[in-house]
Amino acid sequence: MKNFKVAILGCGTVGGGTAKILRSREAGYFAAPGIKLELARILDKFPDAASARHGLPRELFAGAGAELSAEALEAETRAILDDPSIDLVVETIGGTSEGLLATMLAVLGAGKHLVTANKAMLAAHNGRIFAAAAENSRAVGFEAAVCGAIPVIKGINECMTGDEITSVSGIMNGTSNYILSNMTRKGLSFAEALKGAQAKGYAEADPTLDINGGDAGHKLLILLKIVFGIEAKVGDFPVLGIDAITADDTGFAREVGAVIKLICHARRENEGVYATVRPMLVREGNVLSDIDGATNAVSLTGANSRGNVFIGQGAGSLETGSAIVSDIVFIARYGRDAMREYPAGGIPLLDFDGHEMPYAVIFDTEDVPGVTGIVTTAIGAEAINIDTVSHNLRAEDTPGALWAITTKPCTMAQIKRAVDSVKRSTPRAFLAEPKIIPILH
Amino acid sequence: MKNFKVAILGCGTVGGGTAKILRSREAGYFAAPGIKLELARILDKFPDAASARHGLPRELFAGAGAELSAEALEAETRAILDDPSIDLVVETIGGTSEGLLATMLAVLGAGKHLVTANKAMLAAHNGRIFAAAAENSRAVGFEAAVCGAIPVIKGINECMTGDEITSVSGIMNGTSNYILSNMTRKGLSFAEALKGAQAKGYAEADPTLDINGGDAGHKLLILLKIVFGIEAKVGDFPVLGIDAITADDTGFAREVGAVIKLICHARRENEGVYATVRPMLVREGNVLSDIDGATNAVSLTGANSRGNVFIGQGAGSLETGSAIVSDIVFIARYGRDAMREYPAGGIPLLDFDGHEMPYAVIFDTEDVPGVTGIVTTAIGAEAINIDTVSHNLRAEDTPGALWAITTKPCTMAQIKRAVDSVKRSTPRAFLAEPKIIPILH
Repeated sequence: MKNFKVAILGCGTVGGGTAKILRSREAGYFAAPGIKLELARILDKFPDAASARHGLPRELFAGAGAELSAEALEAETRAILDDPSIDLVVETIGGTSEGLLATMLAVLGAGKHLVTANKAMLAAHNGRIFAAAAENSRAVGFEAAVCGAIPVIKGINECMTGDEITSVSGIMNGTSNYILSNMTRKGLSFAEALKGAQAKGYAEADPTLDINGGDAGHKLLILLKIVFGIEAKVGDFPVLGIDAITADDTGFAREVGAVIKLICHARRENEGVYATVRPMLVREGNVLSDIDGATNAVSLTGANSRGNVFIGQGAGSLETGSAIVSDIVFIARYGRDAMREYPAGGIPLLDFDGHEMPYAVIFDTEDVPGVTGIVTTAIGAEAINIDTVSHNLRAEDTPGALWAITTKPCTMAQIKRAVDSVKRSTPRAFLAEPKIIPILH
Repeated sequence: MKNFKVAILGCGTVGGGTAKILRSREAGYFAAPGIKLELARILDKFPDAASARHGLPRELFAGAGAELSAEALEAETRAILDDPSIDLVVETIGGTSEGLLATMLAVLGAGKHLVTANKAMLAAHNGRIFAAAAENSRAVGFEAAVCGAIPVIKGINECMTGDEITSVSGIMNGTSNYILSNMTRKGLSFAEALKGAQAKGYAEADPTLDINGGDAGHKLLILLKIVFGIEAKVGDFPVLGIDAITADDTGFAREVGAVIKLICHARRENEGVYATVRPMLVREGNVLSDIDGATNAVSLTGANSRGNVFIGQGAGSLETGSAIVSDIVFIARYGRDAMREYPAGGIPLLDFDGHEMPYAVIFDTEDVPGVTGIVTTAIGAEAINIDTVSHNLRAEDTPGALWAITTKPCTMAQIKRAVDSVKRSTPRAFLAEPKIIPILH
């Protein structure tokens, strides 16, 4: 029986969950016949508190005292890297500091495998990290970085290998989905729903990255790499959040048999890949429309399989820990072979404005005769086929009309041209910028 | 560049799809750096027809002429087994004959890996086949045997390894789901819906194994082995089909916010595992209730992940072929390490009558005063809590009352005792045997 020894750097929510799983099944998780996983060491800045919080023996933690100094942290990290008996290091510190990147590269440089849940770091530096793994013949596991417990990464790298994946659409941020679900179900405003999410612990005190689409964008960026071989950077594709969504929008969506979800979306066309993160209307009948609360879901369309949908928990201590442990087991089984080389297909990212989808456009116009005609005529002049036109959503005695159309597939560019044409011909037609929301089909 | 050479035995729907995928991406499916998959040989009894049907070059097929004799088939099989350059054999012949089992064992005996879509054979003989793989240090891939393109097997064996799977619930037969969906949506009778499924090609001329739960039972039997290590045989757990479901039943289900689905279900309790295949009520809100048509879905609950749901296509040529190719890629990458050893945990299968679930019970009673009271009193006497009581579903001028209750969690044994007690006290109360249907929660 060979022990496969694991060290964990950072014992917060995810690191603690990982440690608990490894300890709860010390005798159970056999990586392969003859291999046994062993949690050898945990490093955390506050070892006493982490030990108490997760019910883990204090002697597993490196260093003495309640709080380790910067020097002590560095020395203990060095000690782990220099320990030849440690096979794999789990990074659950988080953040994108240069210092942490250096540590992750040093793990691989020391001939150890690396498992990380750090989506922000991988979004920024996956190229350097994967290159270091290749140079040192080691593997990097990052199942936990995309949708927590859902096996999206292995689903793509190890399972859907008989397929050619043509599109990815997913709900990859539980906080924003929880907020949108409550706006839809209870008719709440965004601010009310956010407050509720914070009260229940589904949103952080500073929820910026969840709400502005940034966190979901990191995940899509990682998927662009492993599915399509695209080396994208933050800013290379449009990322919108949910903060501009109103109760009127969710109400309108319901009127056309849909719900609004924050969708990570990438689709390969012949020439390249369209990618975006933004709120979309998802029609009833599409399984993503039923994914409520903090649950995540990823739909992968393939030329052969016609597609698979994976649904599960995108966050949580044991949930995300289970994904990390699955990476540890996988690497213990297969060693450096567990590391894929990602195709560098040279496929370009395309301008999302050129992507054909059906759209909903929500107009806030002066409530004067003829305005509907002016707008729909401009839409028609751009060769856009209108699917539905909704009535005024605003109360009768309130000035202005809030109404919406849905279109047959067309491009965002066409819609923008139609809107611009109305602005030129009738400068005061719009009381607010029309809201253009793709419909996921 | 090493070629990893594959032979296919049986070029019907699934074998043909597998061959087409392997050929369509000859240069694309790299198993790992330095390995290239090669489709070396196809053996089919009717090579001319198979070649024409799937658009595959005739020279890939073994043997001469339109139909191979039994002797020629045997000789060509032997030639493939004796060809040292062939690394892996795909079995897509189907059936459970002794001759086919002998061929599958001989593939492993010849030192070749085996990939099969044959759920009936694995249900009957997985023990012998897996033992032969271990003896010969070779791998058996069977992703295609359970739910076609959905990565259920690798999802369990390679992805959810940081978890302890406690229950499996799934829609694993597309034909019966297609029929039930149409009964629910269109209010059709079973016979009408079956006819429609046959007309559209979703049901075979002889749909017995799809409709009586046999096919779904094979899949659950395989999952009992790989999830819980249980060596079950057909008949070891109750398997019911959908042929007794009526339009009244689907209508009643809708009344309580549910749909009827054929569910494969296994749940671990402390002492063992409850397993069954049978129609169940699935409440709205459970994602399985939204799985319509021929789509399959498997929900795996885990102690750490809280569970994942996988949704996709359970049948079809390229769909199932994609699962077979994913096994070929996996085995080309990892070789004999790709073969798991399944835990022989010694966990017993428990009598399903002892499994606590909520139930729906549909009664067909004499339409006389007091009968509801007699039945519900007997239910109460067994300490069963009633959740809802529905009104008579039968038209007013029709004799007899068709009505139903739903219960809080109780056992099938309790309900059966209550029914027996009514039969003893009021022999003519029931016009038909009450239908007891579990409610999936």
